[in-house]
Amino acid sequence: MTLDHFAQNAKSSWWNEAGPDADIVRSSRIRLARNFRDFRFPTIYNKEEANKVMELVKEKLGKQNTDAVGNLDIFELEKLESLERQVLVEKHLISPNLAEDSLYGACLLSENEDISIMVNEEEHIRIQCMVSGLQLTEALDLANKYDDWVEQQIDYAYDEERGYLTSCPTNVGTGLRASVMMHLPGLVLTRQINQIIPAINQLGLVVRGIYGEGSSAVGNIFQISNQITLGKSERDIVEDLTSVVQQIIAQERSAREALVKTSHIQLEDRVYRSLGVLLNARIIESKEAATCISDVSLGIDLGYIKNIEKSVMNELMILTQPGFLQKYAGGPLQPYERDVRRASLIRERLDLAQIENS
Amino acid sequence: MTLDHFAQNAKSSWWNEAGPDADIVRSSRIRLARNFRDFRFPTIYNKEEANKVMELVKEKLGKQNTDAVGNLDIFELEKLESLERQVLVEKHLISPNLAEDSLYGACLLSENEDISIMVNEEEHIRIQCMVSGLQLTEALDLANKYDDWVEQQIDYAYDEERGYLTSCPTNVGTGLRASVMMHLPGLVLTRQINQIIPAINQLGLVVRGIYGEGSSAVGNIFQISNQITLGKSERDIVEDLTSVVQQIIAQERSAREALVKTSHIQLEDRVYRSLGVLLNARIIESKEAATCISDVSLGIDLGYIKNIEKSVMNELMILTQPGFLQKYAGGPLQPYERDVRRASLIRERLDLAQIENS
Repeated sequence: MTLDHFAQNAKSSWWNEAGPDADIVRSSRIRLARNFRDFRFPTIYNKEEANKVMELVKEKLGKQNTDAVGNLDIFELEKLESLERQVLVEKHLISPNLAEDSLYGACLLSENEDISIMVNEEEHIRIQCMVSGLQLTEALDLANKYDDWVEQQIDYAYDEERGYLTSCPTNVGTGLRASVMMHLPGLVLTRQINQIIPAINQLGLVVRGIYGEGSSAVGNIFQISNQITLGKSERDIVEDLTSVVQQIIAQERSAREALVKTSHIQLEDRVYRSLGVLLNARIIESKEAATCISDVSLGIDLGYIKNIEKSVMNELMILTQPGFLQKYAGGPLQPYERDVRRASLIRERLDLAQIENS
Repeated sequence: MTLDHFAQNAKSSWWNEAGPDADIVRSSRIRLARNFRDFRFPTIYNKEEANKVMELVKEKLGKQNTDAVGNLDIFELEKLESLERQVLVEKHLISPNLAEDSLYGACLLSENEDISIMVNEEEHIRIQCMVSGLQLTEALDLANKYDDWVEQQIDYAYDEERGYLTSCPTNVGTGLRASVMMHLPGLVLTRQINQIIPAINQLGLVVRGIYGEGSSAVGNIFQISNQITLGKSERDIVEDLTSVVQQIIAQERSAREALVKTSHIQLEDRVYRSLGVLLNARIIESKEAATCISDVSLGIDLGYIKNIEKSVMNELMILTQPGFLQKYAGGPLQPYERDVRRASLIRERLDLAQIENS
């Protein structure tokens, strides 16, 4: 399998297409938590009930009923190899929880992977929609379309007063989690991020690393999401988050402008040294790779680097993760072997990118 | 002035041609300390006497008398700009002492710069011959030819019992200082250098950094020279040094082989990361540049890097020094400006090298 072919198959629409402000907002994501009326919730149900939920999903959301929304493929996690599950996590299509701990877990995926419906995670289902750039409203519209379609097939657990009922109290009400992934190297380099994160938290939003709760920011990528799901309409949640994100975008842009003005050569030095590492290293750990990819992405945004597409950097951020590396290698690798494989995959991909652009 | 032209003019024969074992021994140098019979020595003479020594040299060793040895250009240090003096030091054609502290100092240079005669340094004259690779005997023969020629024009201070008389007691006797510059990255990486330096010292030899006494080893380049000038014939001094150098060459070669065997990828990683820095950095300090040049030189020796000539690395080792950089820039530079200029000169030179070889 060639890298090109592998990468093509690995692509989700959101890291390929360029949505609004995609230089700073990598992706917008909506997740709707939903439970079915006639079943106990995942926190307390038993294996048998979990199996029934999955069987119901397979029956009601199977190919015979997808005319309204387009084809969805169903993947039962038990039937996937450990590496395949890891790849789905690395593509942000399923949560680490679903991959590791679920009973009869499954996911339904649309062809371009903008829609993923997780089954038997902490709620019976979570409908996820992920798109490029800052497009939360568009993502919400798309998620709602799938939500309406599911509701036509299966009754939800819904309370007139409290809204959608959920296992996790932080999901109750709208069941809506809206989030964006932002690349904020300017705010990190100018250290403004240290003031901005507490300010964002005070607005009732949460800032996390790239893989959700508990993870730290790798490659200057931050996930910002709503905390509150109750007492606000879905539109208001999305509009409030969008408005904060727009402010952060403006701050990131002025941080970049200030850096270019005051530290142009230092910035160019940093960007090109990182490109030099990616083009030349024979051994590279994931953290160094993420830092270099972040620097080069910034360099592309600033126009320092012209012969590499930004999408290649998004791709590398995904492809250089352990699951992908091992899938590409065709089997499990020791950490040191991964570092060697990661370095050669990066070099190969950049060679390809430079040939494409020469 | 183009870099290519500048570099051409900056080249001495020893870093251009490849002598025996030139992958490890960059150059062999012979220096003969001589004083004139009818003058007090530099440690005690006054300005007037120094002037007389220079006038005598200009008269007796001037163009009208060079038929036997070929053309020599004379440069009086007082007439040179500070940057030009520094460049002569960086090319190892004169000593830092001559550049900074001499009264009526001068140097006579052959066209390909293999011969340099320093005037009014710590001795009245020092005849220096520098050639590529391990060729101490050849260098001695050439130095002797110039020595004989000078002696035909001016009487030396010579004592039947003690030999050539000198200001500095460590020069007395043969007045001979033989030295080699060795690139020993293998012994440094395997840390064997820590045992080898004391062993060399015990043999009555001295190990120093690249710019002689008091300087530390930059870019893994070590100067090894004889300590004793008295009680041994010139041939014996040169043969003894040559034999030690041959042993060090053998040790360096086996260190490199061992590294390739046990740490092939780590070594390749190091070499290519350094190449990446040289090709991409926008700001680089001299020490980092020297380390990277050393790594890339090793990579060329080991066959990892094929499209860059080793001589380009020798050239960069010289061209990236402060004097050269400022001469190329056309005037004095602040340290930070030098780091920027150094980075761009390295990139330019490597681009040129890759075009030459593509």
